[in-house]
Amino acid sequence: MAGSTFGTIFKITTWGESHGKALGVVIDGCPAGLDLCEDDIQVYLNRRKPGQSNISTPRNEDDAVEILSGVFEGRTTGTPISLIVRNTSQISGDYSDIASCYRPGHADYTYDAKYGFRDYRGGGRSSGRETVGRVAAGAIACKILKSIGITVCAYTRSIGSIEIDMDRFDRNSILNTPTAMPDPVANEAAIHYLEMARKALNSVGGCMECIVEGLPAGIGDPVFDKLDANLAKAVMSIGAVKAVEIGDGCKVSSRYGSENNDSFRMNGNEVTKATNHAGGILGGISDGSTMVVRAHVKPTPSIMLTQHTINQSGTDIDINIQGRHDPIIVPRAVVVMECMTAVTVLDAMLVNMSARLDSVAAFYRR
Amino acid sequence: MAGSTFGTIFKITTWGESHGKALGVVIDGCPAGLDLCEDDIQVYLNRRKPGQSNISTPRNEDDAVEILSGVFEGRTTGTPISLIVRNTSQISGDYSDIASCYRPGHADYTYDAKYGFRDYRGGGRSSGRETVGRVAAGAIACKILKSIGITVCAYTRSIGSIEIDMDRFDRNSILNTPTAMPDPVANEAAIHYLEMARKALNSVGGCMECIVEGLPAGIGDPVFDKLDANLAKAVMSIGAVKAVEIGDGCKVSSRYGSENNDSFRMNGNEVTKATNHAGGILGGISDGSTMVVRAHVKPTPSIMLTQHTINQSGTDIDINIQGRHDPIIVPRAVVVMECMTAVTVLDAMLVNMSARLDSVAAFYRR
Amino acid sequence: MAGSTFGTIFKITTWGESHGKALGVVIDGCPAGLDLCEDDIQVYLNRRKPGQSNISTPRNEDDAVEILSGVFEGRTTGTPISLIVRNTSQISGDYSDIASCYRPGHADYTYDAKYGFRDYRGGGRSSGRETVGRVAAGAIACKILKSIGITVCAYTRSIGSIEIDMDRFDRNSILNTPTAMPDPVANEAAIHYLEMARKALNSVGGCMECIVEGLPAGIGDPVFDKLDANLAKAVMSIGAVKAVEIGDGCKVSSRYGSENNDSFRMNGNEVTKATNHAGGILGGISDGSTMVVRAHVKPTPSIMLTQHTINQSGTDIDINIQGRHDPIIVPRAVVVMECMTAVTVLDAMLVNMSARLDSVAAFYRR
Amino acid sequence: MAGSTFGTIFKITTWGESHGKALGVVIDGCPAGLDLCEDDIQVYLNRRKPGQSNISTPRNEDDAVEILSGVFEGRTTGTPISLIVRNTSQISGDYSDIASCYRPGHADYTYDAKYGFRDYRGGGRSSGRETVGRVAAGAIACKILKSIGITVCAYTRSIGSIEIDMDRFDRNSILNTPTAMPDPVANEAAIHYLEMARKALNSVGGCMECIVEGLPAGIGDPVFDKLDANLAKAVMSIGAVKAVEIGDGCKVSSRYGSENNDSFRMNGNEVTKATNHAGGILGGISDGSTMVVRAHVKPTPSIMLTQHTINQSGTDIDINIQGRHDPIIVPRAVVVMECMTAVTVLDAMLVNMSARLDSVAAFYRR
Repeated sequence: MAGSTFGTIFKITTWGESHGKALGVVIDGCPAGLDLCEDDIQVYLNRRKPGQSNISTPRNEDDAVEILSGVFEGRTTGTPISLIVRNTSQISGDYSDIASCYRPGHADYTYDAKYGFRDYRGGGRSSGRETVGRVAAGAIACKILKSIGITVCAYTRSIGSIEIDMDRFDRNSILNTPTAMPDPVANEAAIHYLEMARKALNSVGGCMECIVEGLPAGIGDPVFDKLDANLAKAVMSIGAVKAVEIGDGCKVSSRYGSENNDSFRMNGNEVTKATNHAGGILGGISDGSTMVVRAHVKPTPSIMLTQHTINQSGTDIDINIQGRHDPIIVPRAVVVMECMTAVTVLDAMLVNMSARLDSVAAFYRR
Repeated sequence: MAGSTFGTIFKITTWGESHGKALGVVIDGCPAGLDLCEDDIQVYLNRRKPGQSNISTPRNEDDAVEILSGVFEGRTTGTPISLIVRNTSQISGDYSDIASCYRPGHADYTYDAKYGFRDYRGGGRSSGRETVGRVAAGAIACKILKSIGITVCAYTRSIGSIEIDMDRFDRNSILNTPTAMPDPVANEAAIHYLEMARKALNSVGGCMECIVEGLPAGIGDPVFDKLDANLAKAVMSIGAVKAVEIGDGCKVSSRYGSENNDSFRMNGNEVTKATNHAGGILGGISDGSTMVVRAHVKPTPSIMLTQHTINQSGTDIDINIQGRHDPIIVPRAVVVMECMTAVTVLDAMLVNMSARLDSVAAFYRR
Repeated sequence: MAGSTFGTIFKITTWGESHGKALGVVIDGCPAGLDLCEDDIQVYLNRRKPGQSNISTPRNEDDAVEILSGVFEGRTTGTPISLIVRNTSQISGDYSDIASCYRPGHADYTYDAKYGFRDYRGGGRSSGRETVGRVAAGAIACKILKSIGITVCAYTRSIGSIEIDMDRFDRNSILNTPTAMPDPVANEAAIHYLEMARKALNSVGGCMECIVEGLPAGIGDPVFDKLDANLAKAVMSIGAVKAVEIGDGCKVSSRYGSENNDSFRMNGNEVTKATNHAGGILGGISDGSTMVVRAHVKPTPSIMLTQHTINQSGTDIDINIQGRHDPIIVPRAVVVMECMTAVTVLDAMLVNMSARLDSVAAFYRR
Repeated sequence: MAGSTFGTIFKITTWGESHGKALGVVIDGCPAGLDLCEDDIQVYLNRRKPGQSNISTPRNEDDAVEILSGVFEGRTTGTPISLIVRNTSQISGDYSDIASCYRPGHADYTYDAKYGFRDYRGGGRSSGRETVGRVAAGAIACKILKSIGITVCAYTRSIGSIEIDMDRFDRNSILNTPTAMPDPVANEAAIHYLEMARKALNSVGGCMECIVEGLPAGIGDPVFDKLDANLAKAVMSIGAVKAVEIGDGCKVSSRYGSENNDSFRMNGNEVTKATNHAGGILGGISDGSTMVVRAHVKPTPSIMLTQHTINQSGTDIDINIQGRHDPIIVPRAVVVMECMTAVTVLDAMLVNMSARLDSVAAFYRR
């Protein structure tokens, strides 16, 4: 099937390959009347751009976005917004080595198994570059959410064994460090750690976290379209993510109920919770607390160490993957997680507007 | 919105509340020609039935399923299969205590926030009893998968701090122990652990795991409908699940690439992998290895210890939840996870049939 | 695939066969807070019940509906509403004649071609009885629409060569005549016409029309989900419908632009149109005028005259279809058209609530 | 909502405005392995290009298509195919007249009513130019269908009062006449008729028909996703279409059953029908006969005669629409109908592959 469309009302469809002519996204269902220009989107794309630090692949892409439709006189019209980013730096080079072999940890073999052949240039559609479309769409979702008082913020929580200290949380550090860690001390340690991994011709995994503040209670739908279920899909669909946690996540499985339940308490007229183990979601619906999502990302599969694998003819071979690759995926994936979270939350909010008959009646009595 | 429908081709829609007249599911898109009778489904429903052991709530439901449509002369016709399970044991009792208060860890508050009011009897639609429809549908998916050589098997991996030892793995133990653990030794320890928790008026979390064997390579779609993304949604949508892992899951974030990559190796004519850290999925598409999914489940939120909370009028109160509840959710949720996994995998397989033009052409040249 | 689900937010899934145990529908996404009881639905089901006049099959079904979920203390809860109608009058009789032959004008052959076999009892899922679920769901949609000032009204426009005179339009006549014609004079003529057809062992086609009044301008989406496109699908999906017209429909193809354009005119502060050739829809979006949809329905395919056909073994045979069937489909299909129109319009209205950013912002600033 | 996506497996999403930078489409779910180049698509786009004859607007667009993704080494890869057509001839002219007034028969007013404002340049998204994306996608569907022996062919059936004579049917005439009529004699008469209309500063409606040959029996789904229901939506969603007929369409409503039923007859081993009033669809599923769909198209609403209307400030005004417009929509819409039919039929065929369990089992036993 398809598989490149996400969302019910705010619906995004991405396309494009790592070394094709371009990548892009169509956003359908964006409410009309949003001020939007290319800069709004470019800021987000720049956060995932390669070649910005020592810990990122030196491939140099402008990643300049162009709005092709859906915006008139600076405002969204309600019709599909088509965004395109041209590939400029793809090297039409020699792919003969990877064309015929299945790199460990990559999707080379599974794409061949499914489709009979594949676009092997840079991983084709399975490349991390696929996320260009997600980020472009997410930038718009973030802008809408911000306009109604909701902030979405993702960052690196750990790199290998180096974890941030939440007591040192500094939001500026996310955008200003190569690791996207909100903790400058951990950032230093992580850079050192990555340098050692790179020297060992190896790569490293990590963990990223996203928090959503200002989300009202009542967002999300029961049963299959629970807010956490849709977030799990959104985040797990990012390449290399192998686990998704909500709130305290895995820790809950070794806890007692008395430790894990969050007490409700009134704070003036406001409903609050004494703790937030639940990560802001109860029964699949937001409870008004900060929403917390976490994703565990595997190490970059492309490493320069010798690896055992097979080729397309079914022969065991050894390979050394050439070229420089990011020694870690997480810092550039953080903005992707932020964007997928924003898209999921915004869609749930738009869907939620018809949950009560009195809201429907009030809307049409205007 | 809706939120009670799941799947693209094999599409299930569940309905029903804990203390309503009945619960059920409509399965649309089930291939025609499957031998199907109520017993096929009842076996699965019996695995999630309450009141079967000391560690399960004594509510006594027959949970007898009736096939209302879609089966003719013992075979599925290709049209919607409607399944119903009548509620027989709901006590039309006194809910005045929970009707007006928001139990910690439950969806009482969030349903009210969304809809303005709620069916408070036994949690209504947010009750674990909602999974009756999922299991009934999953039983059919499991039967189809089995008929083409694919087995789906879920079990309890841990209860509180008690974890199974995979070296003692015994499949029979899953169905024959109250914990649904495949390790009889861990089962004993866990029963003891649960007994202590119950005496302390407390509850316990746990972890469940599902493995799929026999799945061919090539199943799943790129980008948003990755097989692991859809599984994450399917499993996270089960009430009380707070984390989903694929393969080695969270562990990958602290690993080096050289540790985490799985080498491909030929075994005769067959593609195999030396290890399976990936849990059978690469780039969102199955790789032919055993698929491994794990879910972390929070402790039952209903505990008899005194808890702080608020009521609907916005007053801080203390509550003691009466009645006996399962001290742990996992053993009865295991079959739910098995069923959601089966539904997801089968749907991906049906969707996959048109992935290649030569298959399409061959099909219509028959 | 599936094919039994319709709608984006107000989503209905129907199930059931003519001679199975029951038929029903699940409505997911109904706004919470609607007063709803079985009588609200029964009134609509009674309009499509068989055996109510000489021109309807004497099969005697109670068609009593039961609400199984989604309603608590007399109000919808926002969760799926499951409705069931038990079949009580199906004769477990002798189907050996139709089991092995393909009746002209019926779906016997096409179901066999698709699925390999079929439930031949009374046409199975392809029976007009399938519409029970549509009507039950539509009754709810109609109630919601009425509560916000929108009325949906369908009626018989013609039976064979007998057409109504709009100058004699009398709404009461729709519910009180066996033909569902809003013109008592035409009703008399049509009854006579049908009597003659029946004596000739024949059946007759007809045309039905549905008007929607009170619909605000701005409902419907551009391009594929145009309001008229979704209505065309909704109405064409009713068995035996072979053409759908919006406004002046087929007539527009032989007109000049000057004849067909509707002039806009102000009526005080209100936008009006001097004429309504467009039937209330421009560019797929409602324009605030009365919406007009028309459907042409083929004659009942079951006739007692001798017909040529084939059997399952591929032999030419002659058949005489026994039993009494409705000599015309239209009068009982009128309520089905009304209901499908209501479901389509309501769904478009719920979807439309997020069309503008200022509405979204206002909603979440409440 | 969205509204710009169509299809279940073969899923198309179009975007773009008449006078924006570009228009395009993303096709997701196209089977892998189809030989595809820009010429395959350009041939279809050229058929809807303006400025090719006296009866078409002289706007001169190249409408050159570029494939941006989804094709590698000349074959589709199974991943989304993104197609773009740049607008080159839009005149950044003076729209002050139409910017503030609501043209009769256009969507100006309804877009404003829905979104609060609109892209008024050339009709924006409601322009006939929106169909560029449909045609580009349909060209691919047509190529796939042709490769498995199915031909889709649309043509003009009537222009105003001039109708073709099926006895003179000449397929070459469709592509070689400005009217797209398959009857050279009617073509001459229609050209004369159009010339007179143009001189009278008026426009003309017409009817188009599409036939599908080679379609196997068994395609389409019961109930809502009937093949004819999906076709009705697909065709009614083309701007200016006001009625859709299947087979004998509207005529069936004044017929007797004995006239309208098609007798099945064996022709050797093949199931055939003596007549084809049904237009190749029974119960929503193809019956193996030629499929026949017809659409009635209103006259071009832009005419140079003086018309009454209102402006955005709510004042009655008179307008004379300047500029040359097509005096008829049909000849250029014929290829749009062909393409929408192809997309609908192909999607139904891909969905149909999992209708029977034995096909599923055979596929996975390969």
